Amino acid sequence: MPTHSDQRLRPVDLADAAIDDDFWTPRIETVRETTVDFVYDRLVESGRIENFRVAAGEVDGEFQGRFYNDSDVYKWLEGACYFLETGDDPELRERVDELVELIAAAQEDDGYLNTYFQLVEPDKKWTNLGVLHELYCAGHLFEAAIAHHEATGEETLLTVATDFADHVDRRFGPDGHDGVPGHEEIELALVRLYRVTDEERYLDLAEYFVERRGAEDSRLKYEAFHPDEIAGDPYDHVVVDGEYDGRYFQDHAPLRDQETVEGHAVRAMYLYTGAADVALERGDEDLVDALEGLWENMTERRMYVTGGIGSSHEGERFTEDYDLPTDTSYAETCAALGSVLWNQRLLQLTRDARYGDLQSRTLYNALLAGLSLDGTRFFYANPHEMGPDGHPLHGVDPNRFANERQGWFQTACCPTNVPRLIASLATHVYASDGSSVYVNHHVGSEATVDVADTSVAIDQDTSFPWDAETRLTVTPERPATFELALRVPEWCEDVSVTVAGEPVDASPGEYLQVEREWTAGDEVVFEAAFPVRFLTSHPSVRSTAGAVAVQRGPIVYCLEEQDSPRPLHQVRLDRDRGVSVEHDPDLLDGVTALDLDARVPDMTSWDDGRLYREDSEADATATTVRAIPYYGWANRDAGAMRLWIDAESR
Amino acid sequence: MPTHSDQRLRPVDLADAAIDDDFWTPRIETVRETTVDFVYDRLVESGRIENFRVAAGEVDGEFQGRFYNDSDVYKWLEGACYFLETGDDPELRERVDELVELIAAAQEDDGYLNTYFQLVEPDKKWTNLGVLHELYCAGHLFEAAIAHHEATGEETLLTVATDFADHVDRRFGPDGHDGVPGHEEIELALVRLYRVTDEERYLDLAEYFVERRGAEDSRLKYEAFHPDEIAGDPYDHVVVDGEYDGRYFQDHAPLRDQETVEGHAVRAMYLYTGAADVALERGDEDLVDALEGLWENMTERRMYVTGGIGSSHEGERFTEDYDLPTDTSYAETCAALGSVLWNQRLLQLTRDARYGDLQSRTLYNALLAGLSLDGTRFFYANPHEMGPDGHPLHGVDPNRFANERQGWFQTACCPTNVPRLIASLATHVYASDGSSVYVNHHVGSEATVDVADTSVAIDQDTSFPWDAETRLTVTPERPATFELALRVPEWCEDVSVTVAGEPVDASPGEYLQVEREWTAGDEVVFEAAFPVRFLTSHPSVRSTAGAVAVQRGPIVYCLEEQDSPRPLHQVRLDRDRGVSVEHDPDLLDGVTALDLDARVPDMTSWDDGRLYREDSEADATATTVRAIPYYGWANRDAGAMRLWIDAESR
Repeated sequence: MPTHSDQRLRPVDLADAAIDDDFWTPRIETVRETTVDFVYDRLVESGRIENFRVAAGEVDGEFQGRFYNDSDVYKWLEGACYFLETGDDPELRERVDELVELIAAAQEDDGYLNTYFQLVEPDKKWTNLGVLHELYCAGHLFEAAIAHHEATGEETLLTVATDFADHVDRRFGPDGHDGVPGHEEIELALVRLYRVTDEERYLDLAEYFVERRGAEDSRLKYEAFHPDEIAGDPYDHVVVDGEYDGRYFQDHAPLRDQETVEGHAVRAMYLYTGAADVALERGDEDLVDALEGLWENMTERRMYVTGGIGSSHEGERFTEDYDLPTDTSYAETCAALGSVLWNQRLLQLTRDARYGDLQSRTLYNALLAGLSLDGTRFFYANPHEMGPDGHPLHGVDPNRFANERQGWFQTACCPTNVPRLIASLATHVYASDGSSVYVNHHVGSEATVDVADTSVAIDQDTSFPWDAETRLTVTPERPATFELALRVPEWCEDVSVTVAGEPVDASPGEYLQVEREWTAGDEVVFEAAFPVRFLTSHPSVRSTAGAVAVQRGPIVYCLEEQDSPRPLHQVRLDRDRGVSVEHDPDLLDGVTALDLDARVPDMTSWDDGRLYREDSEADATATTVRAIPYYGWANRDAGAMRLWIDAESR
Repeated sequence: MPTHSDQRLRPVDLADAAIDDDFWTPRIETVRETTVDFVYDRLVESGRIENFRVAAGEVDGEFQGRFYNDSDVYKWLEGACYFLETGDDPELRERVDELVELIAAAQEDDGYLNTYFQLVEPDKKWTNLGVLHELYCAGHLFEAAIAHHEATGEETLLTVATDFADHVDRRFGPDGHDGVPGHEEIELALVRLYRVTDEERYLDLAEYFVERRGAEDSRLKYEAFHPDEIAGDPYDHVVVDGEYDGRYFQDHAPLRDQETVEGHAVRAMYLYTGAADVALERGDEDLVDALEGLWENMTERRMYVTGGIGSSHEGERFTEDYDLPTDTSYAETCAALGSVLWNQRLLQLTRDARYGDLQSRTLYNALLAGLSLDGTRFFYANPHEMGPDGHPLHGVDPNRFANERQGWFQTACCPTNVPRLIASLATHVYASDGSSVYVNHHVGSEATVDVADTSVAIDQDTSFPWDAETRLTVTPERPATFELALRVPEWCEDVSVTVAGEPVDASPGEYLQVEREWTAGDEVVFEAAFPVRFLTSHPSVRSTAGAVAVQRGPIVYCLEEQDSPRPLHQVRLDRDRGVSVEHDPDLLDGVTALDLDARVPDMTSWDDGRLYREDSEADATATTVRAIPYYGWANRDAGAMRLWIDAESR
């Protein structure tokens, strides 16, 4: 296996870091102990695993479900393997190994593996790249294989992956079949496979898929689709006024020429992540510039305050600048996950703290909201406002706009995605380039990093996300000079840091970088304040006019009906924005709640029964309303919720 | 023809009053000169008139359109006859007479007349009262016949009507077929027919239809519907959890026991109007009490500030207390018309000025908005908020939620309804009981009223609705003692009135009642102020929280995008509610516009490109925004509109 001792920042290996954090450890354990089994049972029930059994010839039967269902199995497997890598679990290991054997048995002799095509349309392989997700499923197979290999040291699934990757490589690329996938994912997976195998062809193929996208003569033009399928989803998203408009697939222009984030948000995130991986390996600064431009468009025009992205349920996609409805916000959980991955890569590429800030914003809010506290319920889409009688689009798509998380979906991308991220969280916390150690996130943990030709243990103890105190204990095997960089989130104030007892300067929104000789037990002590921030949206955002979002630290808050003395539409935050902060260990598994000063109508103004009256006669009265972290909503009784809270003008 | 010299208040006859008003005369003339012809052409094009020709055996053909299409012909005819009564028009008279002949020719020998049943289901007459609108169409025939008789003195159509009424009377009633119509209308028409013919059976039959409604054993229970039609509209509105729930038809309880306005709003209004007519003729105080209770429920819980009613497009109906959405407000134009009729009757019954106020509110706002200034475009439903890109329900029902008025509808109730009301407006202005003259509305006009055994001419000159100055010149044929009552609208302030030069006391929201000996040329001079009122909704209304409606005199205002320096969602009325009032004769055929002090975001706060920032950093800047009368919206370019305007807390 190759080692990467160049100057590129690389995440710490999962094996070299362990989370031990008051906030995250209980969540990781819930996923490990509950969600992994819960999702596996759903995979079995829905026939997703049976499809492999049929393809392997072990039993007779027909393909069940949708053409992308293999991917859910791979994503579950990837997450399970991360858990195997970070803890013994013989029962899970047995289940994983059985599944790996089954997948291997289903593979065809030439390396091809996709149970939908094998069982349903064996003569149509590679003929409908735009829609049928063959390369997408392949990518998730590769990622599962890498995870399995790294967790177990076994080669079985990795060989399945490389055999399939070789098959794809023979088919595609500059010298083969010319086309790119309608749903990206294989790009980032191929770079991972390259890193594990050192097989440059995989990187070349990833680069090919990135670069061919949006080309004038790309095969992802709709003329190349099955003509009899030019109707329905996704065709109705890509034919505009009778003309092909590839924005849904990010296929409207070469990626380097794209200036706005477009189309299906999960696809966009996976593409940008894969492209960033290619840029990192190739040292391609132009591509990095293009990605940074896209990031700026997204974060300045097309992103919810939670970090959630893709505002419309029609096409699960980005729409237009400032089109960010609150009640019909889509903000798919998987798109948030993709954003976390993309920002990890941008952080590696640029070492700019803003990408760490956005990872954190997205993790604690847009992503975590997708999973119930008990680990068995999921939001696919994440509205930012829920009415007392449910969601206005509930009738349109009840699975996606319910006021309660659901146990499963026909399209089950989110329930299989969240566990693999939660399980591999540690890889986002630390990174190194051989001469620097980056502490990207304030998450209690222990890690071992090779830097400056020695092994450095870092013990991180933190009160994040509820309070801004972090202590790093740095223990190199021998005294060594290297840089330690600690991200100071932009939502901190009054930052004070000492390194081995000596104060150092640090600014919010930047990395604190300390280059010195470190000796065993040196401490970095970080202290700051988390002021409660009342955020307003750019005036071009229509849905949030007159309302504020409340944030403290990385946590974005919301109101739930049950915490309010009045229906939520009656609550207006007081002009002075008074607030008291209280940590409640019994609320929602322990959260810091905010009691906000508010004004509500004085109902005695209305006891004459009138429906309309002069507003000068309608008095208001003071009250407080409790805000909870947005990620924690809908874990109690179903009811109204508002993230954007009406507020008196300052 | 009977005379009614009892003490009941009766509207002036249309022949005895003529509108001459700066506001209304141009509208009446537009309807007379344009809308009447425009609608007639649509009746022809859509086959509505051809249906009578086919039923009469004059031509071969099939029934065209919906089963209620006859009613549109009758409503057009009624309106056209009102115009004939108030002005010579030989061409229109010829068209009317031809149509009357045609209708008469289509009538069957036994008096039956309904082209749908005659041509499509001749053996199903009177078998589906709940749905198929036979009695509803009959009612509109009766009204047209009365109008024709009063305008021309001819008996042709009146005889058609009485023959059909006799047919219905033989079929229905305590001693006949037992049932009530799904769509009310015939009740009020039968009372009108009774008044014209003095035939008590018609009043008895009207009373029967009113009293049988909601009876436990009523035929309007869904068990009596065609079993194979127990699906779709309107059945899905009346079967709730498998049980019949007649609220849609106002059939859930006897009217006397109803305490909330329920169901299809037009049906409710027509029922209550007919019931009030019965109560007036019978002197039934209990029924009046019930109706006043329903009125209070409507006006205190279920009515828009425009007077519009029926908030949901699903069933065009009343829903629940305080459920008054702005963007999906339905507020059907015909329901507003029905409310004007009902309030006219309540005013007759009680002489309470509040009914006149609501008539006025509804006329100037909810109803008038249904008609374009040029008389050729109509709103069926009346949203109170329109987005810059159109209406969120446009895809659900494009005819009803467009951002522009439409030229016609498959269900064309509104285009045929508005003209008959506009044409007969004068009958709402004056009323008399033989010893009192009631001036219910400030509308420039001349009327002759029989009171105190003499004939009294009243000449009204007014600046309403833009300013509150009215002069009544009272000219009895000989000096006579009687009461003159003038409604002082509740939106007046600083009222001063002189009668023959002598000041008298008057209070907003009441009738000024002056009993004296009047001699020729006595003047009542009324002066008041119309302050600009900023109205807020009861806190239980969800959609209007934090927003105000602006009203001056009877006119409710709105913002249209083209009059605002900023997108409407950015506008918040200034805390001080500053406003300047300007009459602009060139705007929308002449309106008094309001320039409202407002605050909008200072865009220089946002030039760093950030999407979210602390609201303490986001400055606002002062501006003014022009408000126009709501009735006048969508007469210029299509764009955003808001009736409820976001406002800074006082």
